[in-house]
Amino acid sequence: MGKEIIDDFRSYRSKMNEKLLAQDNKVIKRIFNLDTNAFQDGALSGRVKEMLGLVSSLVLRCDDCVRYHLEKCHEDDLNTEELFEIFAIANLVGGTIVIPHTRRALEYWEELGKTN
Amino acid sequence: MGKEIIDDFRSYRSKMNEKLLAQDNKVIKRIFNLDTNAFQDGALSGRVKEMLGLVSSLVLRCDDCVRYHLEKCHEDDLNTEELFEIFAIANLVGGTIVIPHTRRALEYWEELGKTN
Amino acid sequence: MGKEIIDDFRSYRSKMNEKLLAQDNKVIKRIFNLDTNAFQDGALSGRVKEMLGLVSSLVLRCDDCVRYHLEKCHEDDLNTEELFEIFAIANLVGGTIVIPHTRRALEYWEELGKTN
Amino acid sequence: MGKEIIDDFRSYRSKMNEKLLAQDNKVIKRIFNLDTNAFQDGALSGRVKEMLGLVSSLVLRCDDCVRYHLEKCHEDDLNTEELFEIFAIANLVGGTIVIPHTRRALEYWEELGKTN
Amino acid sequence: MGKEIIDDFRSYRSKMNEKLLAQDNKVIKRIFNLDTNAFQDGALSGRVKEMLGLVSSLVLRCDDCVRYHLEKCHEDDLNTEELFEIFAIANLVGGTIVIPHTRRALEYWEELGKTN
Amino acid sequence: MGKEIIDDFRSYRSKMNEKLLAQDNKVIKRIFNLDTNAFQDGALSGRVKEMLGLVSSLVLRCDDCVRYHLEKCHEDDLNTEELFEIFAIANLVGGTIVIPHTRRALEYWEELGKTN
Repeated sequence: MGKEIIDDFRSYRSKMNEKLLAQDNKVIKRIFNLDTNAFQDGALSGRVKEMLGLVSSLVLRCDDCVRYHLEKCHEDDLNTEELFEIFAIANLVGGTIVIPHTRRALEYWEELGKTN
Repeated sequence: MGKEIIDDFRSYRSKMNEKLLAQDNKVIKRIFNLDTNAFQDGALSGRVKEMLGLVSSLVLRCDDCVRYHLEKCHEDDLNTEELFEIFAIANLVGGTIVIPHTRRALEYWEELGKTN
Repeated sequence: MGKEIIDDFRSYRSKMNEKLLAQDNKVIKRIFNLDTNAFQDGALSGRVKEMLGLVSSLVLRCDDCVRYHLEKCHEDDLNTEELFEIFAIANLVGGTIVIPHTRRALEYWEELGKTN
Repeated sequence: MGKEIIDDFRSYRSKMNEKLLAQDNKVIKRIFNLDTNAFQDGALSGRVKEMLGLVSSLVLRCDDCVRYHLEKCHEDDLNTEELFEIFAIANLVGGTIVIPHTRRALEYWEELGKTN
Repeated sequence: MGKEIIDDFRSYRSKMNEKLLAQDNKVIKRIFNLDTNAFQDGALSGRVKEMLGLVSSLVLRCDDCVRYHLEKCHEDDLNTEELFEIFAIANLVGGTIVIPHTRRALEYWEELGKTN
Repeated sequence: MGKEIIDDFRSYRSKMNEKLLAQDNKVIKRIFNLDTNAFQDGALSGRVKEMLGLVSSLVLRCDDCVRYHLEKCHEDDLNTEELFEIFAIANLVGGTIVIPHTRRALEYWEELGKTN
């Protein structure tokens, strides 16, 4: 693979999000807005919230959601040891069916590491 | 992508369904039959039932099931505004983990629109 | 059981919803607002949308969500034959693990029928 | 608790199943029939199939389905050591969120043991 | 309700856990051990890890797991504003089907607050 | 497709598993060890346990987990009739959303059959 898994994800995601929002469905637009709001600094830091988003995405086994939160965690300077402790909780709570998603998460994380 | 996502889905689906049914497992065959029965006109119209099948597939996050019901909804002349109201309910009830499936559903819907 | 399953559900639900909203968390409050918006008449009727909410709740196996949408469907004069066609789709798409939730849904539906 | 958890489950289950079938919805009735068919002796023994039903119910976290298959496994003379190996796979594959269902399964199993 | 929901949960949980461990199934015992290990201070603090456990339990809709992590978060002096930000992420990512579990979580949290 | 779906799966899986284990996270490593332990001969044979792993993976709709257990079942000389009875239970208990995963499972199974 390589860096193109990052580019492909980002470009497909933003192209389709634009189309989803262009349709002007009020509920859809507000859900997208809420998604930004919920992860901002508050009583909990944005950094902790992104970890919460990441572990939720892992146990719910949503690869694209995992990728999105990996990007945010990477921007927040999460280190690999911290990442693996999140992986550990996700695989323990959610079971070994989370392993394949963890493999793909690690691959994406490694590519993000090369973009610095 | 383009029109080939439709062709690829349809041909893989029918090739493998044929093989699944060829094995002559009675339970599998009856489940396939029921699947046809459950979506026929009854007290509720087939059109409403396909919407029920679509929203169920979205919240259960099954891309191939979504595609199948999108095809049926397209044949039933569902319009894009109606589709987005189904998307809205699915993303609200099922959460933002449904968003990636909604992106792929919209892409497929757009291709279906070009086949007319 | 009897009518108290309706009263208990309604009073617990509204007592706790009040407490949830009293805390003034913006995201929680907006999600509650969206929940009202998403099921209003639009391109699709509120009646069809409640059926979409019901089938989603069934396949996701959320008893309290099922009860809520059963109440709305009852107000919209859904009849029992229509209800069973929704049950059929939910049990076929979501599998026999939906059966226990269908049993409880039917029990609640019967009690709702007595409140008229 | 005690023996009444068995009696309550059985009587509620059969009372509501009767009502579900009385409505004469063809899809619902066939799903119930299939449920009987799928677990009969075939290439695999009914005993092994009940274990498959049990582990599926555990990882899908459906307490009533677990109880049903526990009864069948008990009739098939599954022993407690075998049961725990099924528990182990369910908790490993499905994660620690299966633990609460395992606790309730064990309680039900103990009561079944007293009925001999 | 009141304080007995705490006592009932704790006593049932520890009684059944003891029975689960008494059977001496190696895999089950190790999963229980891992569960303790995974939430200890490491690269991430135990406090953050409990929040990760809580949000995972909420999106996976496991009431007993939610209760367990609420107890731990309460011991770690999580405040109610922080709790609601976790609720917000869980309900957004996991959808409105998480609301009933959030109601029950808040009820339990209130009782925990009275135990100080 | 063809034989490369087997080679691709195996090489990606072992490459990424190695990286996951190299990081030296104790919880992750123990989960991997447990995964080996849980499926060994015990009160139940390893053969039956692999079937339990397969049906769990199917109802939880984890394609990579399905592939892994298909390989093990193939080594244990499961025949196609037995396989279809497992498919039947998975599709009945887990619903028609399991069908797309069953199609992919059958494709993989056919390729495994050619490797003998």
